[in-house]
Amino acid sequence: MTDFQDAKDKKPSVKARLPRGLADRGPAEIAATNRMTQAIRETYELYGFDAVETPFIEYTETLGKFLPDQDRPNEGVFSFQDDDDQWLSLRYDLTAPLARYVAENYDRIAKPYRSYRAGYVFRNEKPGPGRFRQFMQFDADTVGSASVAADAEICMMAADTLERLGVKRGEYVVKVNNRKVLDGVLEAAGLEGEGRAAQKLIVLRAIDKLDRLGTDGVRMLLGPGRKDESGDFTKGADLATSAIERILAFTDARGANNNETLAKLEAAVGASARGLEGVQELAEMAQLCDAGGYGDGRVVIDPAVVRGLEYYTGPVYEAELLFEAKDEHGRPMRFGSVGGGGRYDGLVARFRGEPVPATGFSIGVSRLLAALQAIKSPILDVDKLRGPVVVLVMDRDQIARYQGFVAQLRAAGVRAELYLGAAGMNAQLKYADRRNSPCAVIQGSNERDKGEVMIRDLALGAELAASTKDRADYLELRQRAQFAASEDRLVEAVKEVLGR
Amino acid sequence: MTDFQDAKDKKPSVKARLPRGLADRGPAEIAATNRMTQAIRETYELYGFDAVETPFIEYTETLGKFLPDQDRPNEGVFSFQDDDDQWLSLRYDLTAPLARYVAENYDRIAKPYRSYRAGYVFRNEKPGPGRFRQFMQFDADTVGSASVAADAEICMMAADTLERLGVKRGEYVVKVNNRKVLDGVLEAAGLEGEGRAAQKLIVLRAIDKLDRLGTDGVRMLLGPGRKDESGDFTKGADLATSAIERILAFTDARGANNNETLAKLEAAVGASARGLEGVQELAEMAQLCDAGGYGDGRVVIDPAVVRGLEYYTGPVYEAELLFEAKDEHGRPMRFGSVGGGGRYDGLVARFRGEPVPATGFSIGVSRLLAALQAIKSPILDVDKLRGPVVVLVMDRDQIARYQGFVAQLRAAGVRAELYLGAAGMNAQLKYADRRNSPCAVIQGSNERDKGEVMIRDLALGAELAASTKDRADYLELRQRAQFAASEDRLVEAVKEVLGR
Repeated sequence: MTDFQDAKDKKPSVKARLPRGLADRGPAEIAATNRMTQAIRETYELYGFDAVETPFIEYTETLGKFLPDQDRPNEGVFSFQDDDDQWLSLRYDLTAPLARYVAENYDRIAKPYRSYRAGYVFRNEKPGPGRFRQFMQFDADTVGSASVAADAEICMMAADTLERLGVKRGEYVVKVNNRKVLDGVLEAAGLEGEGRAAQKLIVLRAIDKLDRLGTDGVRMLLGPGRKDESGDFTKGADLATSAIERILAFTDARGANNNETLAKLEAAVGASARGLEGVQELAEMAQLCDAGGYGDGRVVIDPAVVRGLEYYTGPVYEAELLFEAKDEHGRPMRFGSVGGGGRYDGLVARFRGEPVPATGFSIGVSRLLAALQAIKSPILDVDKLRGPVVVLVMDRDQIARYQGFVAQLRAAGVRAELYLGAAGMNAQLKYADRRNSPCAVIQGSNERDKGEVMIRDLALGAELAASTKDRADYLELRQRAQFAASEDRLVEAVKEVLGR
Repeated sequence: MTDFQDAKDKKPSVKARLPRGLADRGPAEIAATNRMTQAIRETYELYGFDAVETPFIEYTETLGKFLPDQDRPNEGVFSFQDDDDQWLSLRYDLTAPLARYVAENYDRIAKPYRSYRAGYVFRNEKPGPGRFRQFMQFDADTVGSASVAADAEICMMAADTLERLGVKRGEYVVKVNNRKVLDGVLEAAGLEGEGRAAQKLIVLRAIDKLDRLGTDGVRMLLGPGRKDESGDFTKGADLATSAIERILAFTDARGANNNETLAKLEAAVGASARGLEGVQELAEMAQLCDAGGYGDGRVVIDPAVVRGLEYYTGPVYEAELLFEAKDEHGRPMRFGSVGGGGRYDGLVARFRGEPVPATGFSIGVSRLLAALQAIKSPILDVDKLRGPVVVLVMDRDQIARYQGFVAQLRAAGVRAELYLGAAGMNAQLKYADRRNSPCAVIQGSNERDKGEVMIRDLALGAELAASTKDRADYLELRQRAQFAASEDRLVEAVKEVLGR
């Protein structure tokens, strides 16, 4: 047996359990995820993006998760040491591994390089409701293009993807902003310059919480800090009131249309050259999206979008669902952001020592899947998840014969299985019901002598069991729910039931 | 930027590299793997197997990889400690997590439970040629059936799977053996009983190397031990000569047909009740496979198959490819085993404290894929991997117009992309070639004034470049390789080239 069994005296048996923040997935969820990712993949390929896959493990240094002053990895990543004592980590996102891949294969790759990848990422964080330590992301990135046409393309592709997945026009929006505009606003507020990086990150993360905390909550986070309901205190950015109001005015600058918004942003950045560059980039993106027909409210400039990651350097974008759904307690809820991204011109440069422009978009697969389930997206098409036809074993010595029935059904493309347990007929039928089987095939010695099989329609059978004998069609129903067929008509008879 | 950038003074840049034993995968390999796993999935579903997925991380204890006397995990698995100091590991195979899953959800699962899963597993071992630290397995298991009909079914399913994947009948065999028969042989040789577990494992692993080392090599491993070409010495099982010869006679007991083999095995186990039980199980499996039509050499009893894992308790089986191929140096090579498995009635019991019968089969995905590539399996259909149509950017101020062309093509289902770089026309055409693009769409100001686009067939263009002007059809060829079309015929003209 396994290594552990030697320790029988220490612990008689091992408890079957998963560590917190991890989950198993059954056939329905796997099928739904596959259908969804397949649709995303097809959309991305239509746009010229190619699949690429990197391993789950990278050098911690590659991921940028090494704490240099302490000579060990950031606690938020799962890490272990190689046999030569180098630190390795499970990937934390799909962006850092892509940057490593591009840098490592730089001369082999035709650039601009459009690629996509779906896969699990890992966070060594305290798990909570809806917060997992392993979850799936679906990313698309364009590396090697400095043009905002690359950013605009990804925004339009995000819109196409959502519609392909069954989200109707008007039920989603792709919001666009630009980090350079925020930089301009901070500069105009006197907050730019070296040594401000930590403070800027606090500002970013504060604005990123606008949706959840509202303007007043964000105002506290931009100022001295904020105590939440649980009493936990989050330290703020400690900005002066004038700077805070300037930032809040910026996040509130969305106008009735893109031109109005652009005018407000131009005013907000004042004389900042960097800020004006950002406004110009936004104007270009808006123009490209308009030309593509996406200016109808599908892609919209919204200064409230900043994204929490510090590595973005230009355009940032976020795909948001607008419809309301009910949570598990029946309360109205919004799914909000199901994906986002932006331009990160510095990530590949870490390896190359020269700037390599890049922009990318990441979908949170499980949140988007939950949203598609809430709107009953036709793409999920869950009705097709039907169990196999079950051939019962009535006489043990006839197993080879029953197996022949199963083989005939499979050869005709019908999902079918032989009952392999040791239970009697009633338990076998119960098993077939639990398997969500459409019908059972039964042959006892009586049927065998006549060269027949009994076909039992399990859906009709359930209906029959729930109905009363007073129904006018009871007898007819009963006759259809279980009927005899000659052995050589087995496949035909089963297909008749499957077609009902 | 990322955490690491703060350490600028320590290291100016990070080297882009993967840890040893890990690999990236590009679009061709991903597409081939997806096609292969999809075909396996469909076959398994036809047999009534359901998809299930477990996470990559489990408690080390769950995996049976804890070294109890040293309070730390086996070095062969990647392990790390949870925030409450419990040891976690990356999964080492897909069997231990399945056993945990079944035990944890025992009452919710309809049994016998047929399931399949594909996914990466991780080994913290010294990597080498063809030996990776992350690789993919594709498993199918039936839990809760003690009947050898479950084992026979999996053997027949393995045969169907290989044929579905394009391996012809006669080019593969599924070999079957039974651990109880080996136990009987060891008993008859006086080697059974408590305290013999370690010795028995050495015997198993020695026989498992028959293919590679031949009878003489295995004889040494059953005796004092063996020194390999590199001079490394492997300690042997230290058996007496009579026991060694008895075991070798057993591994050599394959007859001209299953009945002959069964007769030899019956003789080899002597009076051992366990051995006779094993022979009886093999006879039953052979009978079921015969009845299914698989007795034509597709499923064959072969006593040389033992499988190296200690946890098997009954039938073991191995799918072997019989054809020869060339390795990367042009030397003839065989792929040999591409999958195997067996009955492991003890694994779920570790969690349940009661016996739970189970049997399962595991495919080594990358080895099987290499084999399918060697026989040019139609299932891989690699010709379809064609790059997108590339629309060139001739005038920067016309990007919105070019983007409109791309959008038209995509709307017609044609994979297409806008060139997003900053290079000139020749470099753009070179890019399109590197992308394996079928054609480029070009519109300079001349064409624009006429409301036209130029369509350039890149395959024909390459042919033209390689040909001489003396060819009779040179002009005709040149005309077809690049031609003008009116803007409103763009999609039509591109589709014409795609259809060539």
